Amino acid sequence: MADTPEQSGSPKRRQHAFQAPKGTRDFYPDDLLKRRWIEETWRQVALRHGFDEIDGPRFEHTDLYTVKSGDGILSELFSFTRAGGKTAFALRPEFTPTLARMVAARANSLPKPIKWFSVGPYFRAERPQRGRLREFLQWNVDVLGSADDDEETKAQQDAEVIACCVEMLRSGGLTSEHIVVRIGQREIVEECLKGSHSNTDDLEPAFALLDKREKMKPAEFEKAAKDLGLDWNEFDRLAEAVNLAVAGEKRADEKISHWAAPLITLRKELKLLGVAEWIKIDCAGIVRGLAYYTGMVFEVHEVGGKERAIAGGGRYDKLVELFGGPPTPACGFAMGDVVLSLVLQDKGLMPSGAELAQTLGARPDAFVISTGTEESEAALFPLVAQLRRSGLHARHTSRTTRNVGKLLKEAAACHARFAVLIDDSAQSATLKNLDTQEQQEGVALDLLASKI
Amino acid sequence: MADTPEQSGSPKRRQHAFQAPKGTRDFYPDDLLKRRWIEETWRQVALRHGFDEIDGPRFEHTDLYTVKSGDGILSELFSFTRAGGKTAFALRPEFTPTLARMVAARANSLPKPIKWFSVGPYFRAERPQRGRLREFLQWNVDVLGSADDDEETKAQQDAEVIACCVEMLRSGGLTSEHIVVRIGQREIVEECLKGSHSNTDDLEPAFALLDKREKMKPAEFEKAAKDLGLDWNEFDRLAEAVNLAVAGEKRADEKISHWAAPLITLRKELKLLGVAEWIKIDCAGIVRGLAYYTGMVFEVHEVGGKERAIAGGGRYDKLVELFGGPPTPACGFAMGDVVLSLVLQDKGLMPSGAELAQTLGARPDAFVISTGTEESEAALFPLVAQLRRSGLHARHTSRTTRNVGKLLKEAAACHARFAVLIDDSAQSATLKNLDTQEQQEGVALDLLASKI
Repeated sequence: MADTPEQSGSPKRRQHAFQAPKGTRDFYPDDLLKRRWIEETWRQVALRHGFDEIDGPRFEHTDLYTVKSGDGILSELFSFTRAGGKTAFALRPEFTPTLARMVAARANSLPKPIKWFSVGPYFRAERPQRGRLREFLQWNVDVLGSADDDEETKAQQDAEVIACCVEMLRSGGLTSEHIVVRIGQREIVEECLKGSHSNTDDLEPAFALLDKREKMKPAEFEKAAKDLGLDWNEFDRLAEAVNLAVAGEKRADEKISHWAAPLITLRKELKLLGVAEWIKIDCAGIVRGLAYYTGMVFEVHEVGGKERAIAGGGRYDKLVELFGGPPTPACGFAMGDVVLSLVLQDKGLMPSGAELAQTLGARPDAFVISTGTEESEAALFPLVAQLRRSGLHARHTSRTTRNVGKLLKEAAACHARFAVLIDDSAQSATLKNLDTQEQQEGVALDLLASKI
Repeated sequence: MADTPEQSGSPKRRQHAFQAPKGTRDFYPDDLLKRRWIEETWRQVALRHGFDEIDGPRFEHTDLYTVKSGDGILSELFSFTRAGGKTAFALRPEFTPTLARMVAARANSLPKPIKWFSVGPYFRAERPQRGRLREFLQWNVDVLGSADDDEETKAQQDAEVIACCVEMLRSGGLTSEHIVVRIGQREIVEECLKGSHSNTDDLEPAFALLDKREKMKPAEFEKAAKDLGLDWNEFDRLAEAVNLAVAGEKRADEKISHWAAPLITLRKELKLLGVAEWIKIDCAGIVRGLAYYTGMVFEVHEVGGKERAIAGGGRYDKLVELFGGPPTPACGFAMGDVVLSLVLQDKGLMPSGAELAQTLGARPDAFVISTGTEESEAALFPLVAQLRRSGLHARHTSRTTRNVGKLLKEAAACHARFAVLIDDSAQSATLKNLDTQEQQEGVALDLLASKI
């Protein structure tokens, strides 16, 4: 724990004593503009796909997480009680349990499909690593349908969710040359396991092994599979047959065709939405760690495989019921800001502070300059206040100089759209467009706002 | 603690088991729009006053709060450690310590004055009450200057901060008939105490008593003052003399004039910024509980005194030093969303969901309708995806009906700007402006985005 100033001696030690907690970030203005740009892009892309924004508390009853994931999740949570209180709370590590709770609470009054998104902070009590912090931002996008939705409707919802995710990456300047969306299917994995596994009563260990497969050496995986009673050769043969059937590259037998059907439908829907070139379907290649997924699952990766997943999600048709709601098929994904930022920076696609200030409406409209006469000085602050009151972003120097050349440089340095030079008599002002250098003299002070 | 589903029996009990923690809020779409409107108004008003946005972590080392406020603050904090870890963390109850830490860390490289704001969640482990929740949003606005700033410069910064606060309330539709900004001055209170108190070595108990004065009965206050050794009659006489001198209503002796000087300067600056009618100066009427204030302090109240303070702040010239930075005069305020929302609702100024959707860019641009022919159906999803890709907010029905009249009603119900009716052959579409009812037939599908 950092020393408190009382305990520490020199100013230098003091200064060192206070830092952001490990795995969290301070956002100075340039950092904050980048964060805002990501948040606003998430928000605008979700809105134009017809999703409504929601949010829940930043902490929940710890139960909400253990009921879904078991007590094993406790070590990943920051959990606490109120001084003297007994109720256990935890900082939210993900949004889906909150979402399921909110849907369950109003399931009967909400028209279906429910299309919701949220943007906010999440917390994990893990060791910080590249791409993985203790506090991060996450975008959650979900569609929740009705119990009587048919398979085509569900595939359309899956495709819409994936298209929304892809569209965000496209908005950030990424293309299918940078990014691949890998799609798997848990039900197909289950069928392939049933045809290749000696213990069909408990497939969870096999799912867990497949989820880790890409991080293991082949020999290591093969040994672990053998120990579980899984014939991995047969498993891979079945999965590959499904993949070929989905791609339409090989005629399949009835069993394989039946298994492949949901991915064939999904593939058709993704094509309709114009995102086919971003997709790689590999039915058993992505299984996702979280136990609540029930059908399609997907992960978004940088094609070179350099970073962790940029986003991940899938179908979770049983979760709302677990939280007391009616049967509610659902599909969604989450995207964090940390890996996304690393990928955008690596590709040179993260805009600069000045570009972002303009995009995010943080560019000053007017930089007001007094020439230094008594009248001009007296008019400076009231004019700045008047421009701000009329909705404009107005600034003035905080320096003592009244050298117009120096002040025009300051106006340009802060990227102001206009410089306003109050005349000596403060009866009027000169309005100078700093982009075009055009200027208009003798503008009455009252009319300035309407001309900017 | 809520029962977990495993323990509980009926679906009804289950549903009840999962709720947001006490004192926190779920934001369904209509609630979220209101929250976003407040956040965006805060943000836009701060930006147009020339403040840059920053943020820190949602939790900090607990030390950061105890060093400023002592261990007494611990009962108001949600604090925790990582499983197996020793470092104590606390959810942030306020922003100022984070701000002071961030300024101290870069004090030498940041040009002055530093003008920063932030918008985000804060947490207090207190009993929830009207206007006071365990999780709330807060807007923080601060100016930090240089050690060599003169009194006039500091008064200008005080005035700018107060004007920014007032401008937000004005943007929300409030006027000086609804709201009063009450301004006090801690240095003047100190002088008045020194002239009326038997124990001038420790004025903290007297400050604490004055902070509570308005909530006490006069007799109760008078007894407590007497017990402290405070001659409250003399104190009030001195404070009133200062107030009259500030108002220019009575000529004051040299001592009183000297004490009144900073508020006279502040009053002049506030007048220049056009906010004089919102202000009530009462040098000893507002002292603020937090020990770090050193000069001007203010609180914003509904004039009827019905709710808690909407905002509060003041000058804290010693705080950055406490966190290891150089001497840095500073002034700022915080405004929460809870009391502000109550006041806006009470005055009928909180916009409706539909108004907010339009203000916040959540209104659909296009509602796309298929007439039900095979060609029109096949064109529906690709067209919606294409419009979204070109930056438009596009929707379609999720119902099976293809009755154009019913679908036009659905388009109007979601406040879409345009309905797009794909022709039977899907060669072109009819574009109908739902605000004006004007329509244009035979628009090529590729040209739709440019006409919306």
